[in-house]
Amino acid sequence: MPTPPLKNDRLLRALRCEPVDCTPVWLMRQAGRYLPEYRETRKRAGSFLAMAKTPDLACEVTLQPLARFDLDAAILFSDILTIPDAMGLGLYFVEGEGPKFERPVRNAQDIAKLAVPDMETELRYVMDAVRVIRRELDDRVPLIGFSGSPWTLACYMVEGGGSANFSRIKALALNDPAALHQLLSINTDAVIAYLAAQRAAGAQVLQVFDTWGGALSPSMYREFSLPYLVRIARELERGSGEMRTPLILFGKGNAPYLQELAASGTDALGVDWTIGLGDARRRIGGNLALQGNLDPAMLYGAPDAIRTQVQRALDDYAEGNGGSREGHVFNLGHGLSPDMDPEHVGALVDAVHAHSKR
Amino acid sequence: MPTPPLKNDRLLRALRCEPVDCTPVWLMRQAGRYLPEYRETRKRAGSFLAMAKTPDLACEVTLQPLARFDLDAAILFSDILTIPDAMGLGLYFVEGEGPKFERPVRNAQDIAKLAVPDMETELRYVMDAVRVIRRELDDRVPLIGFSGSPWTLACYMVEGGGSANFSRIKALALNDPAALHQLLSINTDAVIAYLAAQRAAGAQVLQVFDTWGGALSPSMYREFSLPYLVRIARELERGSGEMRTPLILFGKGNAPYLQELAASGTDALGVDWTIGLGDARRRIGGNLALQGNLDPAMLYGAPDAIRTQVQRALDDYAEGNGGSREGHVFNLGHGLSPDMDPEHVGALVDAVHAHSKR
Repeated sequence: MPTPPLKNDRLLRALRCEPVDCTPVWLMRQAGRYLPEYRETRKRAGSFLAMAKTPDLACEVTLQPLARFDLDAAILFSDILTIPDAMGLGLYFVEGEGPKFERPVRNAQDIAKLAVPDMETELRYVMDAVRVIRRELDDRVPLIGFSGSPWTLACYMVEGGGSANFSRIKALALNDPAALHQLLSINTDAVIAYLAAQRAAGAQVLQVFDTWGGALSPSMYREFSLPYLVRIARELERGSGEMRTPLILFGKGNAPYLQELAASGTDALGVDWTIGLGDARRRIGGNLALQGNLDPAMLYGAPDAIRTQVQRALDDYAEGNGGSREGHVFNLGHGLSPDMDPEHVGALVDAVHAHSKR
Repeated sequence: MPTPPLKNDRLLRALRCEPVDCTPVWLMRQAGRYLPEYRETRKRAGSFLAMAKTPDLACEVTLQPLARFDLDAAILFSDILTIPDAMGLGLYFVEGEGPKFERPVRNAQDIAKLAVPDMETELRYVMDAVRVIRRELDDRVPLIGFSGSPWTLACYMVEGGGSANFSRIKALALNDPAALHQLLSINTDAVIAYLAAQRAAGAQVLQVFDTWGGALSPSMYREFSLPYLVRIARELERGSGEMRTPLILFGKGNAPYLQELAASGTDALGVDWTIGLGDARRRIGGNLALQGNLDPAMLYGAPDAIRTQVQRALDDYAEGNGGSREGHVFNLGHGLSPDMDPEHVGALVDAVHAHSKR
């Protein structure tokens, strides 16, 4: 979908490594339980899933943080596990335990039954949410669509939920690697179709979350996560020039692989806080944007301390980028937590803009 | 304490980077719940803490894995949190929730009250366990003593137990860094005294576990964890030549800091599975030993797959070490888990020796 002129196009310009008046900022999980208005909507919806599956409610919570903070993007409110849910695994939530699947996939037989869901029927609620949000956003800031990575989806699908040590999927990787590759291949097809459908529905930036790639050894990361991220970056059609929909590959623990990820052709890389931004920039060279990477726990500090941390991160980036702040999207290295103080979040957002004014 | 000749001195020779007939192996948490005989002893003891605090029982479980597997070392059975417990924080365990403290330290006032415990009174049960184990081991293999790192102890002391995001200690780091440095300084004094006392009681190798250093950003790691590890390596008296008691600094997520850690003067570095052993060897140079680093989840694979993984890790090390297997101590990148199969552990241990025969 052609993008009409945005009132605030900082994010898109930074993702194209073009000059901007100050560094754009958005925050992973910026729509979330730390906001009282989010908790209010959720109570009304009855459950997290009802909220995610009702486009008007998903739109409502997507816009909430924009009303409070001077954020440079909205991100679609949805769950990372919509794809496996649409594949029939039966996503559900147990209070305080995170996502679970009623029917996890455990072996080659389970995997053989999986198929890429139809995006405009089985995942229509996501595309409808994108359309409603775009309408309500009215081009104030761009809308980011997203998906879990093939490996990260596979982790939940095989483990049946979160996991401390990924025992089931790692056993599958050792005992039947062909079956796991089959699963990752289907997931990759689904992720590409899912992101393309979000783009067609109006998403102006796309991010892939490889939350669990960092749990792998280098040889397993290069076998089971990296090649599928590369395939997404290569095969996902996203236009060109000002009409291009940039792709951000975010990964927890991806620091050792930044050069390989940069070579994928992605428009941007998102990194966590275990690498300095200057180092990260030096590793990937200057042809793509970098997103990150304050430790979200810094938000537990006092506002003055948060401001100092923001300034250091901005300066670290510039130091590794030949003194320039271009090509940087400010974010946390992971999502916001429910016990964080909205005032501290506001202090962070304002500090990013204030300290990066050109 | 002078070390009498050991029947199996592979570990000590490997830690001195001397030739050995095959690569030595021991496993973090090798005495643990995955062994039925351990669960039996624990039932008899009544609780984990009773077992750790009764030297004869600590000795019993320390020796259990040696009766089953051809391991090249015993490691003292104890808890990582004995020091803060002796400082008066009140260590206790809630089934399924890990360690907790009745009286966590939260601010400068709490920290000002802390003192280094007396090793031969308040931690006498640990030293007695070392003495009993040395007697019962009868010099078959060396005994490894250990401590948590200053930062890792501080995490538990401030959080009051385990933590998902280290919100309290990171807030302290931002809001009152001087108080946190005071805590880390006391912890470092205590760790040095604790390891020296274990050495005096008979421990022949010493390991520091920096389990949570990897949760820090590079600038915070270099401020709050690294300098205290360096102080331990510099200040802990450990003899010279064949009488030297080698020190191993193990850290989860320490890959980005290996060169700085190697420069500390430690005898060996232990790494987790997020870096290849060949890479790790190239980064630290050839003057100290390297310990690691199979992903413990590989033990969920079938024995044949485990053997392949062991061979790859051994060969990766040699490839980064100019073709030589010297200076390598085989281990996992983290501890064994209760749901692991003892037969798989045996397959791993035997594979290390078989594939590394000189």
